[in-house]
Amino acid sequence: MFFSSLSSIEYPALMITGEHIQQATARIAGYVRRTPIIELEPSAWEIEGRLALKLELLQHTGSFKPRGAFNTILSAGEIAQAGVIAASGGNHGAAVAYAARQLGHAAEIFVPESTPQVKLERLRGYGARVTMIGASYAEAYAASRVRATATGALQIHAYDEPDVIAGQGTLAQELDAQMTEVDSVIVAVGGGGLVGGIAAWFRGRAKVIAVEPERCPTLHRAMEAGEPVDVEVGGVAADSLGARRIGGLAFELARRYVDRVLLVSDDEIRRSQWALWDNLRVLAEPGGATALAALRSGKYRPAPSERVAAIVCGGNVDPAKVGERGSA
Amino acid sequence: MFFSSLSSIEYPALMITGEHIQQATARIAGYVRRTPIIELEPSAWEIEGRLALKLELLQHTGSFKPRGAFNTILSAGEIAQAGVIAASGGNHGAAVAYAARQLGHAAEIFVPESTPQVKLERLRGYGARVTMIGASYAEAYAASRVRATATGALQIHAYDEPDVIAGQGTLAQELDAQMTEVDSVIVAVGGGGLVGGIAAWFRGRAKVIAVEPERCPTLHRAMEAGEPVDVEVGGVAADSLGARRIGGLAFELARRYVDRVLLVSDDEIRRSQWALWDNLRVLAEPGGATALAALRSGKYRPAPSERVAAIVCGGNVDPAKVGERGSA
Repeated sequence: MFFSSLSSIEYPALMITGEHIQQATARIAGYVRRTPIIELEPSAWEIEGRLALKLELLQHTGSFKPRGAFNTILSAGEIAQAGVIAASGGNHGAAVAYAARQLGHAAEIFVPESTPQVKLERLRGYGARVTMIGASYAEAYAASRVRATATGALQIHAYDEPDVIAGQGTLAQELDAQMTEVDSVIVAVGGGGLVGGIAAWFRGRAKVIAVEPERCPTLHRAMEAGEPVDVEVGGVAADSLGARRIGGLAFELARRYVDRVLLVSDDEIRRSQWALWDNLRVLAEPGGATALAALRSGKYRPAPSERVAAIVCGGNVDPAKVGERGSA
Repeated sequence: MFFSSLSSIEYPALMITGEHIQQATARIAGYVRRTPIIELEPSAWEIEGRLALKLELLQHTGSFKPRGAFNTILSAGEIAQAGVIAASGGNHGAAVAYAARQLGHAAEIFVPESTPQVKLERLRGYGARVTMIGASYAEAYAASRVRATATGALQIHAYDEPDVIAGQGTLAQELDAQMTEVDSVIVAVGGGGLVGGIAAWFRGRAKVIAVEPERCPTLHRAMEAGEPVDVEVGGVAADSLGARRIGGLAFELARRYVDRVLLVSDDEIRRSQWALWDNLRVLAEPGGATALAALRSGKYRPAPSERVAAIVCGGNVDPAKVGERGSA
């Protein structure tokens, strides 16, 4: 096994330090927004502790992903004429396309043939060339690797690269400066880029609580298995959190610096989405409401004086669809 | 005429001072949220200057109105058993109902008989007793005055009271502390409570730019006439900005401390709503997008170094309806 063959000391995840994140913050300043926090009143949603929300859905392209994309491109030195390549029809693809355009590079985004029209239009709207190939993301990703090798384009992985993780970690540095103190940070996990960056920034100074949909338990299963393993993914948040396997770097950071991994149901995620809208007029995507779901469901119960930050990490949702509450 | 019979020196609007607003801020702390600002990148939407948005739609009940409601109730001393009364099926009614419930008072909200079910449910959701009476708001308001006199309930006007204006002015004090400096504040106008409070806080220290829908030109017409006059109101933002006549207090403050009054079209307001969603994942109501419309349309053009704050004052909109873009 690849992961077990490396000792934890040698593993490169531990090389993602606060200094790297500070460098990333300086590098991407001016390209990403410093997104605000809002401190909620005591007992909001009957949650104990003092809760602040980090409104990262206000970021360019509607998710935290541009932090990692800009940091990767700006760290890369010279970019070939072919520009950058990524495989993602979702938030990562949009972020790479956006960052490339802002920095004057070409972007080619690989997506499987099943990708819906709305996602293709969004990627093209950010100026990307979109290549549809393969039946799955794995196939599209494989094809993107081949193309990158042929053209010299810079491949930007969605989560499992040090520059991506350091970029996402800039959110944690920002949060740390915005709150007078922070005891715990609640964050949703997909492939692990964001939780990895947050863990790498705080390194145990604040508790990091990872939250996954029950139907996307990528980090949860990896923790059980002691190494990243493939999982079946689905459910309401699979669009943004449905990585099949946690990134190796994020896994190493998580097993050292993540306090616990909690699972929430699709219903809890939907109710958290509606609560954000009803109480705050924040329209988050399911993945963006997942961290809060752990608090609202009581799966994480802060102490009365605990200062808690929950990350609202994305807002790429069709407003018309959030309104459909069904019977819940 | 009532207004012209008073000299400007005697007029009570001038008695709404920074000190009153500071007192209001202290009074309502803990009951209202300190809503965040987000500073946008240079040239966002090709607007010159440095633009920040005050995200007041994150306030309780989805608009700035609780500031004035809490300040009025908390300034009133003892509240009779009958509680508080307001005439409004919109943001003011919701804010009064919410504030009353938080402070343990009854609330009775008067609305005309034509009020749609969704608004009645919202008011009842905040715990208010709703009384439907009359064919218009003027009739419902008149009935509410009669009831308040009979029961001893505290009448809370939607805008034309010093405590309401001082309460809304707390938004300006907050903004002043959040921005290192602010050269101009862009704000939508309905009855004038918010623009009055902002004008009373800045008193010329920052330029205050008032923005009205072309179809709700209440302050614009009053400025032309030299006094508040009745106007016909309609259009996409009438729900929140459709006061028939500017408040007398706000008018006096505006004619001293408002730099100019700009009119924007319904199309410009709609496009501003969509721009807020597309670029920021902020879902504002038409009235909440009206200030930004003056910037996006070029009707207000800041200087390159000008630090501009635009108030996003409300988010009470059906998400499904913002998606309907029609042909624009």
